[in-house]
Amino acid sequence: MTPFTSTAIKMDSKGLSILDQTQLPKLEAWLESPNVESMIQHIRELRVRGAPLIGVAASLQLGWLAEKGASEAEVEKALWALREARPTAVNLMNCLDRMLRTMKTKGVDALADEAEAICLEDVRLCERMAKNGAALIEDGDQLLTHCNTGGLATVGMGTALGAAIQAVRDGKKIHVYVDETRPLLQGGRLNTWECAKHKIPYTLICDNMAAFLMQKGKVDRVLVGADRIARNGDFANKIGTYSLAVNCKFHGLPFYVVAPRTTVDVNCAHGGDIPVEERKPEEVWKASSAHGAPVWNPAFDVTPSDLVTAWILDTGVYDRADVRAGALIG
Amino acid sequence: MTPFTSTAIKMDSKGLSILDQTQLPKLEAWLESPNVESMIQHIRELRVRGAPLIGVAASLQLGWLAEKGASEAEVEKALWALREARPTAVNLMNCLDRMLRTMKTKGVDALADEAEAICLEDVRLCERMAKNGAALIEDGDQLLTHCNTGGLATVGMGTALGAAIQAVRDGKKIHVYVDETRPLLQGGRLNTWECAKHKIPYTLICDNMAAFLMQKGKVDRVLVGADRIARNGDFANKIGTYSLAVNCKFHGLPFYVVAPRTTVDVNCAHGGDIPVEERKPEEVWKASSAHGAPVWNPAFDVTPSDLVTAWILDTGVYDRADVRAGALIG
Repeated sequence: MTPFTSTAIKMDSKGLSILDQTQLPKLEAWLESPNVESMIQHIRELRVRGAPLIGVAASLQLGWLAEKGASEAEVEKALWALREARPTAVNLMNCLDRMLRTMKTKGVDALADEAEAICLEDVRLCERMAKNGAALIEDGDQLLTHCNTGGLATVGMGTALGAAIQAVRDGKKIHVYVDETRPLLQGGRLNTWECAKHKIPYTLICDNMAAFLMQKGKVDRVLVGADRIARNGDFANKIGTYSLAVNCKFHGLPFYVVAPRTTVDVNCAHGGDIPVEERKPEEVWKASSAHGAPVWNPAFDVTPSDLVTAWILDTGVYDRADVRAGALIG
Repeated sequence: MTPFTSTAIKMDSKGLSILDQTQLPKLEAWLESPNVESMIQHIRELRVRGAPLIGVAASLQLGWLAEKGASEAEVEKALWALREARPTAVNLMNCLDRMLRTMKTKGVDALADEAEAICLEDVRLCERMAKNGAALIEDGDQLLTHCNTGGLATVGMGTALGAAIQAVRDGKKIHVYVDETRPLLQGGRLNTWECAKHKIPYTLICDNMAAFLMQKGKVDRVLVGADRIARNGDFANKIGTYSLAVNCKFHGLPFYVVAPRTTVDVNCAHGGDIPVEERKPEEVWKASSAHGAPVWNPAFDVTPSDLVTAWILDTGVYDRADVRAGALIG
């Protein structure tokens, strides 16, 4: 397959490697992913994460498997195993469905090219989302973001953070408040790392400080990513997103979702149909040394469409009226 | 002074000791506080914490100083230094003002007794708050709490958690969701420890999960403590409280503040007059290893009175109409 390097994954003659996101920002460690089993573990343990990125990484892993001479039966078995790695982000399912269709119609030899096409497409989708999002960001804006939504969550420049990166490239002076995003701190560990890299002025806060920041008039708009968007615009995203949406409503602030159209699940009528992954208590225990405490640890929450100001996709920006009229399934 | 032991402080022939709350739940370490300087450090570093408790601990430290033969001038100097240890909780100022009045009217020899009176009074105030609060808790309730508000935050049984403890003693079956309370995790480290001790069924969550829990209909009411209540009912409490209040409003859930009347600052007209302590970035950096990142770290936030369902004090339960009619300053 064609060699390339993005912020979080790379392909070379030895195969696919991923930047271990659980070790950032302390250590920038690249790990090889020689086979489908290793990729499933990388995805489950969040060493590779971000709804768009896991779809691409899984596809590339399958492309590599096919290129190395695996049979159609072997590839299909691997594909169904990969599909189960995480339940909420639909990009993984959508990418693998596309790989499956390609194999069934064009044969196993077409998979390496298809994976590369999916990978390159992500870069273009990110650029379009960033352009659409940046158009809504005003010079002087104070943004608030949740989880990591930049180049570590995609192959390209990101979703929500990508819009901020584009706004800075367009010469707008902005400032980003970064929610640390408990329990796994994708904001505190990863968004801070990306903001520093892109020289975006930022301030790290704990998730429970966002509302007070809004009360103080220090937030102009909130931009988040999405792991799955239902037909009616309800969407799942990293736990904590829903609380931000409620607080935006209360404070009269715009609340935007930034995601590629591939995050829309046309089979999902509303948010209640989105499966929400619950993860192990250890993730919550660790900070408090509360080992053994009963824990509820949903990795995502679901935000209803009536709290969303606009859906910023690669294909355009849609408001609630657009979404009610079917814009997400058009 | 008379020997006694509470959950978090004790007095014996050697003087005052405190349970180091920064080391809980890993270690139950008692530290001596031989003098006012050590107490100021214990308070600043949150080794002793909780609005009611720091008022009592500072008073006992002064009582001990007086009993050991310090002059009025020495005690007064120590009192003003202690008063500056933390800026937001008014109980510290109120207790020390009472100690100052006692010294000025009855002399330095009256201080040991006055400190003991303040300490014993806290136990009674807690019992009354707990009784008033428990009356509002129904059998089968799912409660949500923030920060630590039990016997570690007071000398007695606590404020908000005290009400839950009393409800259990009254035979009500309840369940408590415990916000971990970033950045210093007083919920995850201390409320879990107290719930386990009192055999209250509980579940630990990250602060950003509370809203999703409400959306799922798993919260019947929210009870929090307070560090300072203004005359109009606005109040400061641990950062994250305001976000819960907004979410209660959105979800139509009762939101109660539980505090002794000594937490009311009659000199404070509204929440905007309450000084909010901002603490060092290290407290936020640590979890994310985001050392050097720009951080905003307010230790408290301010919740406006129109988000409060009722103020549960030792003297009674007051709704918004009562508070508008001056119940808090009566």
